[in-house]
Amino acid sequence: MRDSLITLFLFCSFQIVGGQEAPAYAIVIHGGAGNISPEYITTDEAAAISAKLSQVLEKGISILDSGGTSLDAIEAVIRIMEDSPLFNAGKGAVFTHEGKNELGASIMDGKTLNAGAVAGIGDIKNPISAARIVMEESPHVLLYGAGASRFVASHGAEVVDSNYFFTEKRWKQLQRQLKKKEVEKYGTVGCVALDKHGNLAAGTSTGGMTNKRFGRIGDSPITGAGNYANNNSCAVSATGHGEFLIRYTVAHDISAMMQYGDLPIQEAARSVIHEKLKDAGGTGGVICVDKQGNIAMEFNTTGMLRAYATANGEKVLKVFE
Amino acid sequence: MRDSLITLFLFCSFQIVGGQEAPAYAIVIHGGAGNISPEYITTDEAAAISAKLSQVLEKGISILDSGGTSLDAIEAVIRIMEDSPLFNAGKGAVFTHEGKNELGASIMDGKTLNAGAVAGIGDIKNPISAARIVMEESPHVLLYGAGASRFVASHGAEVVDSNYFFTEKRWKQLQRQLKKKEVEKYGTVGCVALDKHGNLAAGTSTGGMTNKRFGRIGDSPITGAGNYANNNSCAVSATGHGEFLIRYTVAHDISAMMQYGDLPIQEAARSVIHEKLKDAGGTGGVICVDKQGNIAMEFNTTGMLRAYATANGEKVLKVFE
Repeated sequence: MRDSLITLFLFCSFQIVGGQEAPAYAIVIHGGAGNISPEYITTDEAAAISAKLSQVLEKGISILDSGGTSLDAIEAVIRIMEDSPLFNAGKGAVFTHEGKNELGASIMDGKTLNAGAVAGIGDIKNPISAARIVMEESPHVLLYGAGASRFVASHGAEVVDSNYFFTEKRWKQLQRQLKKKEVEKYGTVGCVALDKHGNLAAGTSTGGMTNKRFGRIGDSPITGAGNYANNNSCAVSATGHGEFLIRYTVAHDISAMMQYGDLPIQEAARSVIHEKLKDAGGTGGVICVDKQGNIAMEFNTTGMLRAYATANGEKVLKVFE
Repeated sequence: MRDSLITLFLFCSFQIVGGQEAPAYAIVIHGGAGNISPEYITTDEAAAISAKLSQVLEKGISILDSGGTSLDAIEAVIRIMEDSPLFNAGKGAVFTHEGKNELGASIMDGKTLNAGAVAGIGDIKNPISAARIVMEESPHVLLYGAGASRFVASHGAEVVDSNYFFTEKRWKQLQRQLKKKEVEKYGTVGCVALDKHGNLAAGTSTGGMTNKRFGRIGDSPITGAGNYANNNSCAVSATGHGEFLIRYTVAHDISAMMQYGDLPIQEAARSVIHEKLKDAGGTGGVICVDKQGNIAMEFNTTGMLRAYATANGEKVLKVFE
């Protein structure tokens, strides 16, 4: 009953316009993978997450359906998730060992292979927009810390007091982690999209790892690891145990298996997540979309918050299962 | 005459032991790619570089020939290059816009796909050893800045005063860059090796980009971009315009073209450097070795400082050309 409440399968009618199928688009979002089960998430939390994912999905659909770009859809979708305390990104970011917030994000344009990313920032409200500013306004791909904040703020990114990122829930989570009582849930968010112009894009945003130390950078800001898009293959956003996702260059590996090994997207994603990563003891998941709008959502954790929609009206949203 | 002076081709005898060929090993090193030509490098500098590359190569050979691991060879070789002011790594690191040094390095073990890296560090003498400490002593892959230094110092990495990295040559280079009169040479160093146990490894170390700002991180500390090793395919160290090397996930892409597309190492390296990267306007080069000891050294810049040696006694060292 709970599952059916928070798992929506809405198969709507095909969008046939004047006898012709409308140009394909597709969007996939995730809100993190990990111990996502009734044991760790209350019914109320699950309902709130489901409602937020649904809102986010509708936002993405509205942009893509009206001919907006995949980059615009991704940025808009991830901004909403960053503004929600439900996910470990933006407002809901976890705390480092020192009780600070160090956020990271990346974005990639599959048409040009342009990419932008930020890591270790603590005073920019929407890291995904910061990543896009780095991509579009700088000659660089990856900027870190105070320098990154200074650059993106000078190009219009909204600066917030570091207190903005304080939430009681995450603070308690740190206290439990410090006592080693917390089960890690990976709450990174991400979005991949194919727009009506045939362009793929990917975006990923994270609040990092609870209790992290020593300036650790995870996979989310690393192009090719936590995020990748290439019009020749697919767009991928990953979430999970970041160190494994970097070592296995997960996002680019799925793209490469499609491009050089001619694997369909589902097989490539399955192989990387359920064979390579799992065999190594790495936990996590990916969302993927290819240039035909085929979708893959694979994870080797208990669960992964996820949803997708396509131009033919198909919508799927899953919290548990 | 100059070319013949500083380009050594030493084809020595095969190492046949008791009628059996000794187990294969191979080592390749680079000292950066870019405008490496008599126009920008004096004869004296070229001779000093040649002598240092030769010393470094002998060190690598001695370790591998006596059965040492590829990881040990790479760390030892890169430490020598870091200690020399001739290369943009360690002692010879370039200056940031603010007149500081921000070094980065990464190392990867092709057998286990373990990886370690540091970025934005300014007080550790040998970043390649810091990267190895991250790989072996932490659960992480990439650590940044003061936190990275604190961690590796607590595990024995040698700390130096930031003045250690001051060299007159690099300071003047920054002053010229600030006046936009400097032609960029990419002096990153790297080493890839196959040891007698059949294990590949890769290491890359950099002093960053002259005049860099905003906490920019380049490709050298990014596993899959500037550095990658995988016993199923090859080991790669890259040098060049870091942003392109990240966007094209250069090191992992060469590995993937071999693993999934069955390309020989030379073809994979050629395709990535002379087609993909060049078509995009990206400049740089790579050194690669595969599990059979085959070697590729490709660059689309004027030059790349490089050398290699194999178990059969072949040694090649090139400064110009």
